[in-house]
Amino acid sequence: MRLVFLPGTGGLALGGLRFFNQGCLMRPKETSNMPWTQAQRAKKMNPSVIREILKIAEKPGIISLAGGLPSPKTFPVSAFSAACEKVLRVDGHAALQYAASEGFAPLREMVAAGLPWKVDPAQVLITTGSQQGLDLAAKVLIDTGSRVLVETPTYLGALQAFTPMEPEIVGVASDEGGVDLADLSAKAVGARFFYVLPNFQNPTGRTMTEARRAALSQAAVRLGLPLLEDNPYGDLWFDTPPPLPLTARNPEGCLYLGSFSKVLAPGLRLGFLVAPPSIYPKLLQAKQAADLHSPGFNQRVVAEVMKDGFLDRHVPTIRALYKSQRDAMLAAMTRDMPEGVQWNTPAGGMFLWVRLPQGMNAVDLLPGAVDKGVAFVPGAAFYAGQADTRTLRLSFVTASVEQINIGIAALAAAIREMHETAPATKPHDESHDHETTSLKTS
Amino acid sequence: MRLVFLPGTGGLALGGLRFFNQGCLMRPKETSNMPWTQAQRAKKMNPSVIREILKIAEKPGIISLAGGLPSPKTFPVSAFSAACEKVLRVDGHAALQYAASEGFAPLREMVAAGLPWKVDPAQVLITTGSQQGLDLAAKVLIDTGSRVLVETPTYLGALQAFTPMEPEIVGVASDEGGVDLADLSAKAVGARFFYVLPNFQNPTGRTMTEARRAALSQAAVRLGLPLLEDNPYGDLWFDTPPPLPLTARNPEGCLYLGSFSKVLAPGLRLGFLVAPPSIYPKLLQAKQAADLHSPGFNQRVVAEVMKDGFLDRHVPTIRALYKSQRDAMLAAMTRDMPEGVQWNTPAGGMFLWVRLPQGMNAVDLLPGAVDKGVAFVPGAAFYAGQADTRTLRLSFVTASVEQINIGIAALAAAIREMHETAPATKPHDESHDHETTSLKTS
Repeated sequence: MRLVFLPGTGGLALGGLRFFNQGCLMRPKETSNMPWTQAQRAKKMNPSVIREILKIAEKPGIISLAGGLPSPKTFPVSAFSAACEKVLRVDGHAALQYAASEGFAPLREMVAAGLPWKVDPAQVLITTGSQQGLDLAAKVLIDTGSRVLVETPTYLGALQAFTPMEPEIVGVASDEGGVDLADLSAKAVGARFFYVLPNFQNPTGRTMTEARRAALSQAAVRLGLPLLEDNPYGDLWFDTPPPLPLTARNPEGCLYLGSFSKVLAPGLRLGFLVAPPSIYPKLLQAKQAADLHSPGFNQRVVAEVMKDGFLDRHVPTIRALYKSQRDAMLAAMTRDMPEGVQWNTPAGGMFLWVRLPQGMNAVDLLPGAVDKGVAFVPGAAFYAGQADTRTLRLSFVTASVEQINIGIAALAAAIREMHETAPATKPHDESHDHETTSLKTS
Repeated sequence: MRLVFLPGTGGLALGGLRFFNQGCLMRPKETSNMPWTQAQRAKKMNPSVIREILKIAEKPGIISLAGGLPSPKTFPVSAFSAACEKVLRVDGHAALQYAASEGFAPLREMVAAGLPWKVDPAQVLITTGSQQGLDLAAKVLIDTGSRVLVETPTYLGALQAFTPMEPEIVGVASDEGGVDLADLSAKAVGARFFYVLPNFQNPTGRTMTEARRAALSQAAVRLGLPLLEDNPYGDLWFDTPPPLPLTARNPEGCLYLGSFSKVLAPGLRLGFLVAPPSIYPKLLQAKQAADLHSPGFNQRVVAEVMKDGFLDRHVPTIRALYKSQRDAMLAAMTRDMPEGVQWNTPAGGMFLWVRLPQGMNAVDLLPGAVDKGVAFVPGAAFYAGQADTRTLRLSFVTASVEQINIGIAALAAAIREMHETAPATKPHDESHDHETTSLKTS
């Protein structure tokens, strides 16, 4: 069986997912006389059940609301083509040679100039996607057993990146407006950092309010708690830009991650980090050890595409497309979903967060939904601690409006069908409600 | 001061290098109220003194024999340009989208088909340069304190990649024909793996003999010692291909790393690993966590360039160029070097390994050489344990034949000058001779 991993969804094991305990997981072939001894951390890396979901979602006839894939319609293919031609013609030998680990200087300058606070290009490190920024931060900041704080729920690619360094990952209670500061304060002692994705979060689509950011920024200083701020979706706002990043409020206490994947294209694997001088040199050394440098050719191509304000013209077209698809999904949800299903209204980004009626479980729902031709990601994968198993994530950017309409109708039918056959309310199912995002009721 | 790291040389700290203890190292700016606590492993990552050498080497008028940079003349720029155009025209949306962590299937198939033993494409993982293969292997196979064996000397990018996982790195005695098997056997107990670069090694240029390979392969099975075989230079042979890889002799007990950097171009950052089924899934999970996948666009471009046997036509031109430059360097060495200087005759690859006369130190030689307009890398950086400080590495591929002639004459003059002012023989200087490569005397 060949498995394919499609990123944007990550790949954590989900304990007790019945759907996946029926033999469809890849198991390493056991071979005799193997001399290999694996590191402890390798045992903590689990097979990705989400890859299985995406595999199902790729079958013909299945509408996938599962993946975290930008709409290919937004990729500026002809701009890339022109840039490749020019870079190779004008600067081919340098573009194809080994290069500085810090990144291509003009691209670092563009990144610094594009951020809404004063950034020295010397503090910018170009990474192989922002996922690598998570890997580098984990290497430099996490010892075995170190406490690391994350939102509830959180981006599971971050959990994947942190886990190999064997931290104790602790979820901090969060609601639609962001992290719960009382819970954060209670859990901050000795924590190496708080990982936070304030804009149009993956998986919930929620955005941290200005008030919450101001309070979090002050609390972090007071607590001596570094922030690892991840902002891959911040440019994808629909009506108004999100509030100022946390890093802008206290650059010395924050490590900021950004990406070109959502505003240009993910297939070039370019992102960046902005780090204070106190930790930049170590991140750079970790970068050298990890892959020497990110592809210099790609960095030159992106710099060539971005010059003359390309993003100022291009990103608004992505916003408009994604907004129209979000609106279509919201309308379909309102039209089709049975009573008791809850969801939010993301102000940007790629994801909608859904909560099933009491007594239902998103993992159990998945086979029925796939039978009806639609796939999603159960929310359980995104929790560092105990999961709210009623939650699920829907992407509104990969599928077309027509597919969204068909997919949501199919999902609603699957929910209705499961609801009719569901057992009576289980009181214990509500025990983790305080950990979950509060959602508007449909 | 801005520092630039040029890979192919790595960046390990060299204890007690007087030349670099005069304030030219970058020191992190100390800032007050920093909440950052670094991981123990970060403290083990040291600033790169070799970056300083390369910085010097980049000054106008300095001929650099220091870097490990392929000759840009060998980069097939127009083939890349045509491939970029075609990939974006025919397959642009897929090329720019997120992709499978395993790599682009046609490229994995080409890699498998191109190796001299039976390889299932399912065992091929495309990496972001072969440096990433070292990082992934380290994550999956090294616990804190794990014993890891390396050659003496060894590729320092490997030392950089292993160090963050906090192993005990133990150098195994080696000579011009490869590793000393008695010393290997004595040190193998409990070792997680032996890292070995059998073809045209970086830094020494030496190649492991067929007899030594056969014996090492048998010894590894007997000792239960996995081999991590790194082969970035294997295609760059000058007269006859090197003997069969170690992995071909026992694929279940070996992890094999390859690279497109030396046969196509390093600036695309593509390499690969071939792993047995018993550890492939963990390496894949580590890959996902590290950067999701290597750039799909680059993978398609390389596959497009490589189809129809491109490498069969292209690589012989690289071999011919590098051979002529090796010959020029050997001739210049023979012509110019004072008595007592030793060097080898690499049968391929990019590097020549030199040993200075008794009583001389390559680190002390560097400032005088730079004054005369030539730079090299002192050998000390490449030793896991105690270094042979008389050694140095010369690259014969980046500089032209004319530059090689001028550079070697300048180096010889610097050696002569230092030799004249050197103190009498220091007997202790010979104490580590057993660890060093035996070299032909000029």
